[in-house]
Amino acid sequence: MTPTSAARQSTLRSSNLALVLRTVCAGGPLSRADVAVRTGTTRATAARLVDDLVAGRLLDEGERLTPPRRGRPATPLLPGARVGALGLQVDAGLLAARVLDLRGRVVAEHVEDDDLVGSDPARTLARLGALTADLVAGLPAGLRLAGAGLALPGLVDGDLLLRAPNLGWTDVPAPDLLAAQLPGGLRPVVGNEADLAARTVADTAPGRPGPLRDFLYLSGQIGIGGAAVLGGRVLTGSAGWAGEVGHVCVDPDGPACRCGSTGCLEQYAGRHALLAAAGLPLDTPPAEVVARAGELPVRRALDAAADALGVALAGVVNVLDLPVVVLGGHLAALADVLRPGLEELLGRRVLSARWRRPTVLAVTGPPAAGATGAALQALDAVVADPVAWLP
Amino acid sequence: MTPTSAARQSTLRSSNLALVLRTVCAGGPLSRADVAVRTGTTRATAARLVDDLVAGRLLDEGERLTPPRRGRPATPLLPGARVGALGLQVDAGLLAARVLDLRGRVVAEHVEDDDLVGSDPARTLARLGALTADLVAGLPAGLRLAGAGLALPGLVDGDLLLRAPNLGWTDVPAPDLLAAQLPGGLRPVVGNEADLAARTVADTAPGRPGPLRDFLYLSGQIGIGGAAVLGGRVLTGSAGWAGEVGHVCVDPDGPACRCGSTGCLEQYAGRHALLAAAGLPLDTPPAEVVARAGELPVRRALDAAADALGVALAGVVNVLDLPVVVLGGHLAALADVLRPGLEELLGRRVLSARWRRPTVLAVTGPPAAGATGAALQALDAVVADPVAWLP
Repeated sequence: MTPTSAARQSTLRSSNLALVLRTVCAGGPLSRADVAVRTGTTRATAARLVDDLVAGRLLDEGERLTPPRRGRPATPLLPGARVGALGLQVDAGLLAARVLDLRGRVVAEHVEDDDLVGSDPARTLARLGALTADLVAGLPAGLRLAGAGLALPGLVDGDLLLRAPNLGWTDVPAPDLLAAQLPGGLRPVVGNEADLAARTVADTAPGRPGPLRDFLYLSGQIGIGGAAVLGGRVLTGSAGWAGEVGHVCVDPDGPACRCGSTGCLEQYAGRHALLAAAGLPLDTPPAEVVARAGELPVRRALDAAADALGVALAGVVNVLDLPVVVLGGHLAALADVLRPGLEELLGRRVLSARWRRPTVLAVTGPPAAGATGAALQALDAVVADPVAWLP
Repeated sequence: MTPTSAARQSTLRSSNLALVLRTVCAGGPLSRADVAVRTGTTRATAARLVDDLVAGRLLDEGERLTPPRRGRPATPLLPGARVGALGLQVDAGLLAARVLDLRGRVVAEHVEDDDLVGSDPARTLARLGALTADLVAGLPAGLRLAGAGLALPGLVDGDLLLRAPNLGWTDVPAPDLLAAQLPGGLRPVVGNEADLAARTVADTAPGRPGPLRDFLYLSGQIGIGGAAVLGGRVLTGSAGWAGEVGHVCVDPDGPACRCGSTGCLEQYAGRHALLAAAGLPLDTPPAEVVARAGELPVRRALDAAADALGVALAGVVNVLDLPVVVLGGHLAALADVLRPGLEELLGRRVLSARWRRPTVLAVTGPPAAGATGAALQALDAVVADPVAWLP
């Protein structure tokens, strides 16, 4: 079938609007003239598209800059600060709700540490719903929520959390248990916590790629999640279940894991496992672990964690050929004490290390990177299809 | 810059020729009318493009079929049988040269088993060059070689084989050592053996996708190579070094590997390691291993191989989320005795196994699948850009 001319025009407008918004998100602030050059459109077309996006609040006009030499002052365009998205997270150690705007800035957030291992899914999600409702009620007037996402530490299938070993949850219809309490019929899109947290490393704001494009992200929580990022995109696998680095076997004769297997990486380098091995209380902050790294039991636990990380990550790098490993969560806070042992093992166990030894980086940021990633994902959907958000 | 109208016409013709050839390769035999329908072009345009491809021998016309009812008889179109490519392979256990035509059929081949562990690269490649020259000299008159590929069991960087642990080769400029002896200035494109072998599973002939699109391919040789295939494409990684499943660590305290690490999968399930553990001569054929699987030392070696495969592959599936594992090489021949233990471990160690337990398949075919894949890759280049091969 040939689309009608009107339909074609409308499709063309949609994709041009998306191109302009993406261009400003990726490289803003830009003037209308910059937008015309970078999108390869005429000045008149660019200006018309920009005006539509400004009218719909997806772009903001900043203060006019007086040009350094002569010429007309240009109005800088920025992603809209009055369009936001809600990112939620349940982890075995925390509940979080965070609102990001299109510039990637945190507008509001509420993060509660708690031990949620073995918690009741309905009760925990109701708590998250209630604290989210409070957070949303306090948002600045005029901020429009364009979507919501929910990061969960396990296998997800559409709306269903199939299994989160560390929460002890199985077959939980999470959005159903949340949506009733969320304002305005917002229904969160569910994603894997580490996949979403990895987006916060790949992109520094909605539609704005960061410098790392190929890396393995490791989310250090009570368990360990992971995500491989190739060309800036999270490798999701055939059913969306990729990245479960925490359950790579490090020693078949190792300790039992909550997943039913034995010797999984998270039994050595997960937060609880590491603290238990070090003889420290399970709520010891990472900074204290680092401070006490000279004590023998702590040193031994850290060495065992570094060894396990080295064996598991060398395997992942051998299979995926990624040049960078990014440590997140508690592993980022422990990076300085883990790195020497980890890098030594990667150098020895990665087949290509003689030509390119993997680099180990740490990203320290606010807790609950999964919530940030969930909001980013919802905002990416706006950037990809802005026409749906215009009047 | 705007391309000239003539340049645009020429680009359009190239991409239309590619579309027609790809359509026949993927779904032939087809009539000119079928081609018009499937490519969405007019009958006249389709017929003209087909005629050009027939003139250049990239398509052949088969015998006219009398239609079952009335109507004009249609001429079936097939990929050209007089266009071929050369696939070469050096493995620690064999040398191979094979010529495939555009229909994916073997036109000629020469495979020599030999123990090439620690062999001299220049001498071995000269041998391969000489046997290839003989093979090419005996090809049917009128067969045109459109390209060549060389499969090597290690890390490749452009033209250079960086490292092949089982051959004991490092930094070998393989095409330079071969090209002098190859006819007509053919210079082979170098690729990793398992990556190329995996193509023979993903595609059944040049441009003809097979039924499996997402799988992990395991190449059982003296060592073990691997390739993850996602959506029909081999995952190459950021530098082309992905898929080294043979060097995933199964037990950090395990035996030393040629790669410098310890406890690598291939030290349990590689052909030599398995035969040595079973107390059998290193040239024992897999069928004999299967026949003697009831003998205790053989049984133990097979169990250890299945356990090692289970631990390593569960890790890969946890990270990549692939629904199928395809065993190739000697592992395919041993599949029936390895599968029970392997599947049991995958069921226990793969986090998502309750929802989808990975399927283990075996592909038994002629030896040296890497050579076939190298020829396929060269022919895929013809299918992708046929205009370069037309008069």
